[in-house]
Formats: sequence, C-alpha cells, structure tokens
Amino acid sequence: MAFRASAIRAERAIVYTQYGEPGQVLKTLTYKPLSTPPPGTLNLKVLLSPINPADLNTIQGVYPAKPTLNELVEGQPAVFIGGREGLAEVTQVGSGVSGYTAGDWVVFARAGSGTWASSRNVKAQEVLKLPRKDGLSQVAGATITVNPPTAYNMLNDFVTLKEGEDWVVQNGANSAVGQAVIQIAASKGLKTLNLVRARADFADLSNKLKALGATEVLTYDDLADRALTKSIVKDWTAGKGIRLGLNCVSGKDTTSMARLLGQDAYLVSYGAMSKEPLSLPTSLFFFKGLTATGFMQNRWNETHSRSDQEALISTLVDLAVDGKLKEPEHEIFTISGQDSDQVAGQKVQELMDKVTNGRYGKKVLLKFDDTH
Amino acid sequence: MAFRASAIRAERAIVYTQYGEPGQVLKTLTYKPLSTPPPGTLNLKVLLSPINPADLNTIQGVYPAKPTLNELVEGQPAVFIGGREGLAEVTQVGSGVSGYTAGDWVVFARAGSGTWASSRNVKAQEVLKLPRKDGLSQVAGATITVNPPTAYNMLNDFVTLKEGEDWVVQNGANSAVGQAVIQIAASKGLKTLNLVRARADFADLSNKLKALGATEVLTYDDLADRALTKSIVKDWTAGKGIRLGLNCVSGKDTTSMARLLGQDAYLVSYGAMSKEPLSLPTSLFFFKGLTATGFMQNRWNETHSRSDQEALISTLVDLAVDGKLKEPEHEIFTISGQDSDQVAGQKVQELMDKVTNGRYGKKVLLKFDDTH
Repeated sequence: MAFRASAIRAERAIVYTQYGEPGQVLKTLTYKPLSTPPPGTLNLKVLLSPINPADLNTIQGVYPAKPTLNELVEGQPAVFIGGREGLAEVTQVGSGVSGYTAGDWVVFARAGSGTWASSRNVKAQEVLKLPRKDGLSQVAGATITVNPPTAYNMLNDFVTLKEGEDWVVQNGANSAVGQAVIQIAASKGLKTLNLVRARADFADLSNKLKALGATEVLTYDDLADRALTKSIVKDWTAGKGIRLGLNCVSGKDTTSMARLLGQDAYLVSYGAMSKEPLSLPTSLFFFKGLTATGFMQNRWNETHSRSDQEALISTLVDLAVDGKLKEPEHEIFTISGQDSDQVAGQKVQELMDKVTNGRYGKKVLLKFDDTH
Repeated sequence: MAFRASAIRAERAIVYTQYGEPGQVLKTLTYKPLSTPPPGTLNLKVLLSPINPADLNTIQGVYPAKPTLNELVEGQPAVFIGGREGLAEVTQVGSGVSGYTAGDWVVFARAGSGTWASSRNVKAQEVLKLPRKDGLSQVAGATITVNPPTAYNMLNDFVTLKEGEDWVVQNGANSAVGQAVIQIAASKGLKTLNLVRARADFADLSNKLKALGATEVLTYDDLADRALTKSIVKDWTAGKGIRLGLNCVSGKDTTSMARLLGQDAYLVSYGAMSKEPLSLPTSLFFFKGLTATGFMQNRWNETHSRSDQEALISTLVDLAVDGKLKEPEHEIFTISGQDSDQVAGQKVQELMDKVTNGRYGKKVLLKFDDTH
C-alpha cells in the first residue's frame, strides 16, 4: 500500500455530481486510460479546453442545455464532466469510422460534450475534424467553436449586408464575441460601430479594437446626447441607417443603441451582461419595423447539417490561419500531474471562483499536464 | 346679401392647417361641389368615416405617415383633411378609369387619404372597390381597411398556425383589433387566450368576448402566479406552447404575457396603450428563440401589391357578410347640414376632445348630413 498517488493516476477530469457554484461542486477525478475505442468511436487526447460563461451556467444548473452522465470510474457513481468546447487530437480510431487518422485535430461539436478531461472516447459524430493544423495555434483551435461562429452567424443570418458599405453596431465590443465580430466584419469589408463602457484607459482600448479592424469606438455615455449621436451616425453611414445591432448587455444602454438603428433593422441578442431586461420603445417595432431576436450557437448547431457546421469551421480556420481572426487574449491553467486529486481539485475550485466572479479579463484555458 | 348660410354650403370637410390637439386645431370648411372628375380619377360621396387613434396622432404630428395638402377652396390656403379610413360611393367616373360604375362602394387604400369630408375626388389607385354591397353594412365597410386587416395579417404573416390546434395569446383583447383577432382566429379554427384589465364587470366582458369566439379570457392579474398560469396554459395547449403573441399594451403585463410563449415564438406589437416600453428578459431571445417584431397596416399596404390588398379586403368582406366578423360597437356622429361652419366646428372640437381623452368606449364614425 505504498504506491505513490501518481503511480496509479492515468487520466484526469474536472467533474461534478450535482448543480451548484463551480467553486464548490467541482472535483478532479482520476480514471483509467481509455480502452480500445468501440466501433464508431474515437479516442481523443484533449489538448486545451476553455472555460466559457455557458460552462459555469451549466454547472450552476441555469443553462438550458443539460449535461449528460459519464461512467468514468467503474463501480463509482456516474459524473458530469465540465466544459463544452475544446481542441483534441485523435489517438485511436474505432472500426467503422472513416476519414480520421491518429494525429488529426478535432473540435467538440455538441453542447454538454465534457471537454475538461485529459482524454475522451466519443462517437465520431460528436466531433468535427479541423481541415488543417498547419499555421493554426492550439489556442485558436480550442476557441473556434463557440465565439467565432456566434459572431460569424449573427453577421450572416439576419440581414444581407453590403461589403464596403454597410455598418453593424454592437455593445460589449471588447468581449470575446465582440472582438470576433470586429475581425470577421472587417474581413468582409463591413464597418463596425463598437460600444464599450467608459473607462480610464478608453484610448488604449479604442486603439486595440481599431487594430483588430473596428471602424469606430464609442462609450455608452457618448450616446447620452441623442441628437448629436444620431447626426454623427448619419454622417458615418452616409444617411443609410444601420440595419444590424448585436447585443450582449441589455439594460438602458442597449435602449440607446437600438435608437441608432435604421428602418427594418434587426437587433440580435446573445447575452445580457447587465442582467437587466431588454427594454425598447414599442414604436421601434411598429413604426421603424425593428425585429428583436436572439442567437445561441448551440441552437444553430442543432438546426444545421453537419456539412454546414464543417463549412463554417473551415471558413473560421482559414480566417485564423490568415491572421484575420486572432486568438483571444488568454491564460493557460495547467492541472499538474504532480498534484493529488484533492490538491488539484482545490486549485480548480479557486480558479473557478475567480472566473465566476469575473476576476479574469482574459479567456482561461485548461491544460492537463502530461507528466502524470 | 340675404342668402342663408345653407344656401351656399354644398360640401364640407374637417380640416386643419397645423399640427396640434384635435380638439383645438380642427375646423370645418365648406367647399363647392366637385367638378367633373379629371381623367384617371373618381368623384366619391363619403358615406361614413371613422375616427381612429392614428388619425388623432396624425393631427398631433406624431404619426410617421404625414398628411398631404388639398386646395379645397380656390384662392384660400391649402388644408389637411382629417381621417384615413372610410366608405364611399362612386358618383362619377373620370375618363380612362375602368372597372368602376356610379354606385359602387369603395374604401380608401392609402394613409393620409383625408376621409373626413362629404365628397372627394381621388385617383383611381387611391381606392379599392368592395367586391359586393349586398349584406354588408355601411359601418362594416367603413371600418374594414385598418383594424380587421391588422388582425388578419398578424395572424397570418409571422407564424404558420395549425387550424383546430394552435393557440394565440393577445392583450388588449377588447380593443377593435383584439375583437377582430378573436373572430378571425375563430373563423380559422384557431384558439385564443385573451387578456384584459381586471374590472368589476369582468364576467360580462368575458362572456361578450367568448360570444365572439374567444376560447379563454384572463386578466393581467391572473398572470401574477407564474407557476399556476404556466401549468394552466400547458394544460390548455396540451403542452404544445403558444407560438404567437399579439401586443398593443406593453409594460410589465406584456412581460408576463411573453413568458407564456413557447419555443421560437413571435411577439408582434401593434400598439402600446400603457405608454410604457416593451421590456423582456433577454434570455427569452437567446434561450427561447423569441422574435419580437411589429406590425403596421400602412406599412403592409406599401409593401404589398394592389391585388394582394384586393384579395385581403375581399376575404374580410366575405367574413363580414357571413357574420363571422361583426361590425364594431359604434356611435355615428352626424355633422348637421343646418349648422354653420363655426357651430359645426365647435361641435367637432368637443367630440375630438372626448375621443382623444378616451372617453368613448366605442368607435365613433363621422357622417356628413345630406340635407344641406
């Protein structure tokens, strides 16, 4: 009975058995290396998996997509594995699966995938193969299935926009989706009016967003003078009116943003960082023909074919490789193979507390140390 | 110089020369009988013309469709004629106009038509001929171009509803549009959940709406117990969820109504009687796929062909003749040919004051007395 813990630790996952605060309910769990993959499945080594807000909401039990149970350790109760997004490398290909070779990079295609683990055995249809690895960073690959597709589809699915001419307005422009919107819009020759909170370092932030391709950057406070803002926007858009607004904030600042939209515009909401409702003068709907709707990438995946999904990922990978879609500002959190489950679990809980409370300005990605 | 005023008074209109409160800026103006109609035009005798809320807003200058000037009396400044909706009889057909005979009934097809007049000369394309007169009351004909089409199109244009199975929820269910929604939905075999303000005579109102075809009637207060309401609605709709909501109220009661909607529903706003904004939890948009949009019949007319408009009016006339679309509760206000312009103008101002202040529960229609 003198085995060192590391001697029996082979693979590890971040798991939970009941909903609650991520900083309280998450544990790390060691499990055996994967067996030979059953027919129709792939064995994967997960390279990097980000912590997204939806992952935290899923653990809290307030996200509509529910996780599924996994029997990671034989004879022990099944667990939920955290995480939905991630980059993995194929290690073994089960019989009956074509188109995959060991070494291929894949991304997880479904909500509730469970990506916070060092390895996974999955059905082939639960992943999408990346069309290329060369020139693509692991961080870019690990963050390509949630935020960039959200940005791409919101720019694409609601309003037909003319390259080099049409404008899009968005709030929360410094968010991960916001930065993807700026870059994808710029790659399509679309102009963006980007709204952010007033802050001491506004000039720096504005310059950073403009370096990504933002056309104009304003603060919500700038919208207070309605007449002035309208005339500035009219000037910028050559009187054409903005036909697409993207919202992840809601509350009164979004009411001001909605007033900037022109006739028959769409306001697409994908978040509500203010935790306030979306409140709009009703006349915008019946006089100005506004349509307010929402977007959620999970739902898009459910309602689109696999080939649509592959085409989208392929487009985004090309943008990333071409330098037109930069990897997000990030920090990699390594779960050390030297730590016991208890110590590692403690560190994960502390990390999740920080992330849940918004104390990270950057995207955090999880990496499971190889050295165990 | 001993002519009686009535001797030179031939035709009369309710007019204004500047925006303002209808009870202050409206005047009556006497003008000469129409000359022979110029080519491409029709002379009309207006039979009845209702006072709609949009007419008052137009006079106040707060409605997006602006009125046009008319030179009613030669040598005097041009005036705006009030009214947008009305039933008229063709009295003379100009050269080059086919399909019309004296005696035909027509309705005005455009915003800002100017229907508060005893006679009008109009271009043929400014009116639509009613397909039949037999069995149709003048009141039904005079009120068939605004409220019933609004109800019909809102039920038709946004969500494909299954007859005998699907539900629609609406607030302001006792409004003119609300009553048309109830009847048109019933004629299509659709079920309606109708919301009204709590009131002493709720049972009477509920019975009245049910007699029109309402499936269920609740008050906004009934929605306070969210869990109970949800379970009742689930029961009524056999768990299917309501996919169309119609709003003319806004404010917090509409937030409660929106929560009753199922996945991927439409909330269509055509008014805001509460004068409060439409305020919705953002999650309804991105989690439940809600689309909030608006409807305005004038806009529909602008974006649809004449044959679409004719087909719609024909459908509505058939419903009215078949007794499936009852004429609204109403009162006819006659402008007496015996009164001078000054006396008649005074009476009109008093009437408009009452209507503007909502002191009429009924639709008021204007009739110009023949006896002058």
